[in-house]
Amino acid sequence: MKRFFPILTWGRDYSRMTFEADIVAAVIVTIMLIPQSLAYALLAGLPPEVGLYASIAPILIYTVLGTSRALAVGPVAVASLMTAAAVGELAQRGTPEYLGAAIALAFLSGLMLLGMGLLRLGFIASFLSHPVISGFISASGILIASSQIKHLLGVSANGKTLPEIVTSLVGNIASINIPTVLIGALATAFLFWSRKGLKPFLKARGMKERLAGLAVRAAPVSAVVVTILLVWLFGLQGWGVKIVGDVPQGLPMPAMPPLELGLWTQLALPALLISIVGYVETISVAQTLAAKRRQRIDPDQELIALGGANLGSAFSGGFPVTGGFARSVVNFDAGAATPAAGAFTAIGMAIATLTLTPALYFLPQATLAATIVVAVLSLVDLGAIKRTFAYCPSDAAAMVATILVTLIFGVETGISAGVGLSILLHLWRSSRPHYAIMGQVPGTEHFRNVDRHRVETVPEVLSIRIDESLWFPNARFLEDTIYDRVAADPRIRHVVLNCPAINFIDASALEALEAVNAQLKDAGVKLHLSEVKGPVMDRLVQSDLITHMGGQIYLTHYDALRALAPEITAATLTQPRCETAK
Amino acid sequence: MKRFFPILTWGRDYSRMTFEADIVAAVIVTIMLIPQSLAYALLAGLPPEVGLYASIAPILIYTVLGTSRALAVGPVAVASLMTAAAVGELAQRGTPEYLGAAIALAFLSGLMLLGMGLLRLGFIASFLSHPVISGFISASGILIASSQIKHLLGVSANGKTLPEIVTSLVGNIASINIPTVLIGALATAFLFWSRKGLKPFLKARGMKERLAGLAVRAAPVSAVVVTILLVWLFGLQGWGVKIVGDVPQGLPMPAMPPLELGLWTQLALPALLISIVGYVETISVAQTLAAKRRQRIDPDQELIALGGANLGSAFSGGFPVTGGFARSVVNFDAGAATPAAGAFTAIGMAIATLTLTPALYFLPQATLAATIVVAVLSLVDLGAIKRTFAYCPSDAAAMVATILVTLIFGVETGISAGVGLSILLHLWRSSRPHYAIMGQVPGTEHFRNVDRHRVETVPEVLSIRIDESLWFPNARFLEDTIYDRVAADPRIRHVVLNCPAINFIDASALEALEAVNAQLKDAGVKLHLSEVKGPVMDRLVQSDLITHMGGQIYLTHYDALRALAPEITAATLTQPRCETAK
Repeated sequence: MKRFFPILTWGRDYSRMTFEADIVAAVIVTIMLIPQSLAYALLAGLPPEVGLYASIAPILIYTVLGTSRALAVGPVAVASLMTAAAVGELAQRGTPEYLGAAIALAFLSGLMLLGMGLLRLGFIASFLSHPVISGFISASGILIASSQIKHLLGVSANGKTLPEIVTSLVGNIASINIPTVLIGALATAFLFWSRKGLKPFLKARGMKERLAGLAVRAAPVSAVVVTILLVWLFGLQGWGVKIVGDVPQGLPMPAMPPLELGLWTQLALPALLISIVGYVETISVAQTLAAKRRQRIDPDQELIALGGANLGSAFSGGFPVTGGFARSVVNFDAGAATPAAGAFTAIGMAIATLTLTPALYFLPQATLAATIVVAVLSLVDLGAIKRTFAYCPSDAAAMVATILVTLIFGVETGISAGVGLSILLHLWRSSRPHYAIMGQVPGTEHFRNVDRHRVETVPEVLSIRIDESLWFPNARFLEDTIYDRVAADPRIRHVVLNCPAINFIDASALEALEAVNAQLKDAGVKLHLSEVKGPVMDRLVQSDLITHMGGQIYLTHYDALRALAPEITAATLTQPRCETAK
Repeated sequence: MKRFFPILTWGRDYSRMTFEADIVAAVIVTIMLIPQSLAYALLAGLPPEVGLYASIAPILIYTVLGTSRALAVGPVAVASLMTAAAVGELAQRGTPEYLGAAIALAFLSGLMLLGMGLLRLGFIASFLSHPVISGFISASGILIASSQIKHLLGVSANGKTLPEIVTSLVGNIASINIPTVLIGALATAFLFWSRKGLKPFLKARGMKERLAGLAVRAAPVSAVVVTILLVWLFGLQGWGVKIVGDVPQGLPMPAMPPLELGLWTQLALPALLISIVGYVETISVAQTLAAKRRQRIDPDQELIALGGANLGSAFSGGFPVTGGFARSVVNFDAGAATPAAGAFTAIGMAIATLTLTPALYFLPQATLAATIVVAVLSLVDLGAIKRTFAYCPSDAAAMVATILVTLIFGVETGISAGVGLSILLHLWRSSRPHYAIMGQVPGTEHFRNVDRHRVETVPEVLSIRIDESLWFPNARFLEDTIYDRVAADPRIRHVVLNCPAINFIDASALEALEAVNAQLKDAGVKLHLSEVKGPVMDRLVQSDLITHMGGQIYLTHYDALRALAPEITAATLTQPRCETAK
């Protein structure tokens, strides 16, 4: 019970102090979330109120199920972009089908996350290597920013890939709308400046640290208010400035997501991709913030909580949500002590939905676009390419490939290619385990890599130490390598496989060992094992390998050599033994 | 040059003796191959001559490029079934489009194999775990055998999955044709008996061991001859016995495979699957046979050779080929000394194509079906399930799943599911690396798993040894585990990661380590490393981890503990040090 409802744990010792902390954080996050929720709905190609809806029920549900005390769940840039990409395939923007598909997407991704959580499949996130995910996020940031330029210029353009967007912008550049450009430029400039400049500016004018910080968070809202007033006063909508227009007032109504199997099958893959990307992002920010206060989060429970949040979004007419990075950090800095802060945020958003929506009529889309652009550019980190390259070129290559594919072919192809690349890279590495040919350190019972130490060997005995567990990706390698060595040197009569680093042998590797054993037998060579770990041995005795094995199993490699090549071990001094088995 | 054309190596010391050995083997394999090539063409839904064509050019090319001295390349059962499945999607049996698609399939799979070989991508075969491939082969055998029943009963039926085939057979059972059943039953019974019974039978009648062996190989051909005579004598075709009919005489003409991008994209996945399955099978039989004479094969060159063989098949109007298991063993037993045996087989097949085709007119399809059934049932090994389960239930589960999916949804879905399962299983395992919390063995400088040895620890220091390389599948696990341990015990002040088993740290794992380091810092805990391997250290110094790391890097774990918890190491006796670093 407590495992699935963490609220029962933190809820019990909920005090007045934590309550105050949570309220303050909630106010700040709400102020930040109002414009963002509208903006991300716009980005997803959905009506603005959908953004508001997605910021109420999901947060409430996460409060009940979540284990992170600072995570702020809601609409985020990348998930919104992926939603637009997935749903755009199936329906025309502005149609009920489009909205329905977005809701279905939230529903499916909710089901998947919940399922993964209950089945403890969190490891599926390991499909994505860090370089690939960070490359994908950077590319998405670029795509998102460039997709907003049309709103900042007041031209109509579309496209899901960078080339498409650029050509379509260039094509329509003639119909640029000056008032929109002015508002867009103003808002963008202000928001950029406010991130760095506003706080010092206000403090210089004697404002309190804390209040100045709050003002920075409120910058987007004030941009919203100011531009609304500008449009209203000068009737700029008459000058061609696109505005948000009517936003239905009132709370989201509980609604069934569309139950069409056809639609679901089409959305299954995108839903999976959104779920995985969202989860990976959520878990890393949650973990980072939890650590700062030495708290714990449960990755599997986070899957359940995210799943619940998305189901909540779907059943209240919202679109896919996940843990937002920036927002969570703000929530944390603002002092959120428990997930209750989220609940208060949800209440704040509900009030906003009930009261503020009429005021949004004159809100220029350019302002929302500015909010998005400023928000997402922090996602773009191309320096990571250089850093990664310095450490590991193959990882950097995967990163660059992911970025290029995402920019040129769109998000879904991009992330799919990323997953494929991650797995290929992983298989490639696991197919080439680290191994060493060993010789005896003179006068000791120790054996070391012949390439790195001065050691003694005998031509009749080949000592190989494999430094990885044996399973199917390296089964082939095992066969090829051992066998090639033997075929290369006709003097070899014994092969001793030194196994202290082998923690697991799967069925494929077992068959490979049996094949090696048979091949060596045919070649008149005996296969021996040394220093086999207990758990591995327990499995091996279940198999035919032991019964058919040409050679013996030795407790230590030294024992093996003493039996097989007494002439070299004879030299060994008698000294306190140090078991080499770990 | 010699690397890509092994013939330059074995060709130089080609003697009269090897020539004789090769000729004998070639004759035996040809006798075996004639009925098989016709049968597998039938299985693939292609005209019989295509089977003959696929047994000439490909073998010649393999002779030039191949490194295995006994491998017999040509049409095989599973590849033929997969061809039928892939091509059946796109065209109607018996149409030129169908044949064209089959040729294009051989062409694509040739290109892919060649490409993989030149890029040394042999590791791609590690996509498939042994249990999955063996499960797939068994299921294919069952599918193939059941798909031939219609020919044995003389009814018309179709279907790509077991349910489809069975229902369609049951539906048409009324139109059963007695003469066909008789021929089919006769041929099947004879072929089954000949495998075990013929040799002793003949020897009992004083025939020489070797000649009797040859007779067994010739059993299918004699079945062909006898049934042809039966049909011809009694005009059984008039009684509704389906016969092969006209087979165009003469050698295959060089022809361009269809160059339609649309077709290629549709065939890309099947081609890849056929290539991988074919390669995996080929390499294992080649390796097994090579070992028996302590010879070597080069896996990457085998890819090139197989690729060349398939291109050769495509350009001579054939369908996908690969190394046949049974045929290669026969070739080996018959004494084939070099790939030249293949060349002679090709010549034999060419002669057959030039001279025997008219004789095939009256050949009943039932006989070919019998040949197939008897051949493929040796592929079915359901006992493997039990054996695998005894050793490793999760592998057995993957095997069973592959078998069921293949039988119920067909070969392509089956092998795809198998690949998916293999990868999932692998990621699941690599996402949970083996690790141990360590303590000091009293009075020594050694550290062991606290769960398995009586060791001393101090609450301030957490010693963790991870027994796998660190990369993205276990990066998440690393973060979660270390961090959870620390969060669970507030007394911990130092975490020492013992790294002797870590051979590689990829960019993801590095980021995870940096995250862990930062998280521990925030929690007031220092991260240290001990016994980092040279190559790993070389990479780490390229990274930020070292500069930001809260703690130190120690040469040995003992040094770490001596620095961090002198109170327990103080007890250590002074004794000759044994380096623990490998």
